Amino acid sequence: MNDHSPVPAAAPLTPIGVFEPPYHIVVFSTVRTERQDGYAETNARMEELVKEIPGFLGLDHAQTPGGLGITVGYFRDADAIARWRSDDEHRAAQRRGMSEWYERYTVQVAKVERSQEFQRR
Amino acid sequence: MNDHSPVPAAAPLTPIGVFEPPYHIVVFSTVRTERQDGYAETNARMEELVKEIPGFLGLDHAQTPGGLGITVGYFRDADAIARWRSDDEHRAAQRRGMSEWYERYTVQVAKVERSQEFQRR
Repeated sequence: MNDHSPVPAAAPLTPIGVFEPPYHIVVFSTVRTERQDGYAETNARMEELVKEIPGFLGLDHAQTPGGLGITVGYFRDADAIARWRSDDEHRAAQRRGMSEWYERYTVQVAKVERSQEFQRR
Repeated sequence: MNDHSPVPAAAPLTPIGVFEPPYHIVVFSTVRTERQDGYAETNARMEELVKEIPGFLGLDHAQTPGGLGITVGYFRDADAIARWRSDDEHRAAQRRGMSEWYERYTVQVAKVERSQEFQRR
């Protein structure tokens, strides 16, 4: 199942080198249901909303078609994550996700101890 | 260590609930090049090899076609990650990855402070 095709030059990947450890990440891994009404709109809205959280640093996302999705959110500290967790619109989206969009998911909050970056020249 | 619970057949997502925090994760995020000769074979070999590392707990992977790939590896502790980092065959694969397969990547080692899991009933 290797359906990888050529990568556009401007393929997105958060340049983590700009924020030194320790910082925090939230890893959100999902298996979706077949009920996806409203998912794309809500997802786009959440990506806008999280950018307003003080201490939010960036977001990376990968989605295997018909398989796992993994989103990694970068935050300055645990307080920034607490702010995002307690956002009312985010909480409403989570409830809808559990009732409709997700078959299964895991959320992990972790403190980054070290990081490295490679960029072809 | 209690990491041998059966995984639900329909859900290709590591059941993290079976290993309590703190544990460590390695988040490997990639943008690939157009040169992918040998990638699939090496990737499959690495997935086999990492399973032999004492303290390895599991692996999740998502790949957007033509976009980002994100792999999350679960490890009991930092020592288990150090063993994996120093594996000779793994290091050879990393060198080939930098010379051929990856346009750009980031690696982050993080300590999981808390986790949660949702499974539709």
